[in-house]
Amino acid sequence: MKFVTFRHEGTTRTGVLDADNAQITPLANGEGLVDVIETWDNHSPEFSNSTLSLEEVELLAPIPRPRRNIFCIGRNYLEHAKEFADSGFDATASASHIPDYPVVFTKAPSTVIGTEAEIDPHLQLTDGLDYEAELGVIIGTGGRNITKEEAMNHVWGYTNINDVTARDMQKKHAQWFLGKSLDTHCPMGPWAVTRDEVGDEPLDLLCTVNGETRQQANTADLIFDIPTIIETISAGITLEPGDVIATGTPVGVGIGFKPPKFLAPGDVVEVSFSKLGTLRNQVGHGQ
Amino acid sequence: MKFVTFRHEGTTRTGVLDADNAQITPLANGEGLVDVIETWDNHSPEFSNSTLSLEEVELLAPIPRPRRNIFCIGRNYLEHAKEFADSGFDATASASHIPDYPVVFTKAPSTVIGTEAEIDPHLQLTDGLDYEAELGVIIGTGGRNITKEEAMNHVWGYTNINDVTARDMQKKHAQWFLGKSLDTHCPMGPWAVTRDEVGDEPLDLLCTVNGETRQQANTADLIFDIPTIIETISAGITLEPGDVIATGTPVGVGIGFKPPKFLAPGDVVEVSFSKLGTLRNQVGHGQ
Repeated sequence: MKFVTFRHEGTTRTGVLDADNAQITPLANGEGLVDVIETWDNHSPEFSNSTLSLEEVELLAPIPRPRRNIFCIGRNYLEHAKEFADSGFDATASASHIPDYPVVFTKAPSTVIGTEAEIDPHLQLTDGLDYEAELGVIIGTGGRNITKEEAMNHVWGYTNINDVTARDMQKKHAQWFLGKSLDTHCPMGPWAVTRDEVGDEPLDLLCTVNGETRQQANTADLIFDIPTIIETISAGITLEPGDVIATGTPVGVGIGFKPPKFLAPGDVVEVSFSKLGTLRNQVGHGQ
Repeated sequence: MKFVTFRHEGTTRTGVLDADNAQITPLANGEGLVDVIETWDNHSPEFSNSTLSLEEVELLAPIPRPRRNIFCIGRNYLEHAKEFADSGFDATASASHIPDYPVVFTKAPSTVIGTEAEIDPHLQLTDGLDYEAELGVIIGTGGRNITKEEAMNHVWGYTNINDVTARDMQKKHAQWFLGKSLDTHCPMGPWAVTRDEVGDEPLDLLCTVNGETRQQANTADLIFDIPTIIETISAGITLEPGDVIATGTPVGVGIGFKPPKFLAPGDVVEVSFSKLGTLRNQVGHGQ
């Protein structure tokens, strides 16, 4: 199933999108997607009798306001880890550019925007606005000490994420959080797709800027795969339904080019995954 | 005013504690402290007619579940920045141990526990459990682009925080988040005190372990003071009512000693601030 969160006639609602991406069947009640996920195993959502056309609604992020910060994995594709080390923007000392353990940081929930919403360039703060296409994992059943073997049973579904980053801030504040958490810097969507619909085969990723291919990869190339990430985080942190984990970005971000290809006002970034659709956002012109 | 969040007869409630720390006047309705803070400027909370004795309730953290991760400032007292650099536990490369810009990271909301609750030592994960006494700032009126000059008007109040840290994890995962966010690793409280009651004079901090003084400092010695921290974060992130900012810890943490004085099961950590009371937590014995 493909879940969408949307605004229609002034109200935020959740619904299911059909296979043709044409018609939405809204939930009968006012639940958000996290409410649906929380009761997923023992409660089937009730649906409205009428449908809406996708074209008549404004899509929001599938989880417009996560209940805590988004978990993010850094340096999780080999060639990206190398391009980041070579760029000079990493304030983290490391004997090797390949991490020995997963690197985990967070993005504030206030960063989340939906597809077609505008990315604020924060021109007063950064000269190094960059994109990072990432597979987002949405946790279903929570828990502590989840093993790799059990981990996939805790995955409710997937969504596209653009881990927008202010590179100069990521470096100058040493820890990455501020450079990763500027308002609007987590485009997510266009929708969330359940694990049973996606399957467990690796997914193709494509990221373009103004139509030019910048990142093209497959999630089979993650250094730390989804089960390892879930085992690592849940070893000490109880995972909760609706938690979102951005699994890391492959080679081809702006700082990977010489000179860097940073984002500028007017640029359009598209993040696509097989089976998950395309997340499209334009960089705004600032205030 | 001193606000407490507590459990009594199976219900979580919010109330105001009297000057003698003896009697609680609960709110009449079921609001949490963040609800109170959100409507602070235009709505006086309604109080119950009866009072409860502090002794008959179980205190929780004043904000038991923040709506997003706690903002934390690292290396924000000079001598602590030096002891941390010298300890070998910092994975962040830096020309100097004194940061040029505030170092900002987060702790997950699931880390929060109240006074007298047990700190889980996570013995399977860490051999380097450490304490960090910190002044916690609670945001009242939110906003973006808050200047230093206006910043104090956005402070609703204060609370004590123990930024418990797994030092080995803080190092090996490069970014600090995981080592800072194990379940139960953010003792907070015992209560929250409004800014008008605390005043704007610097506060004395005292941290003891099993009665032995480990940290003794004054918030006047913060490298980046509260207005600077608020200006820095809000430059790109819209602050929200109920946001909590842990402002950093002074010299005297466990890794500052040679050999390090890490926490062990049974140890009792007390974090005291003038006008804010004492936050007391014992390290548990694990599972």
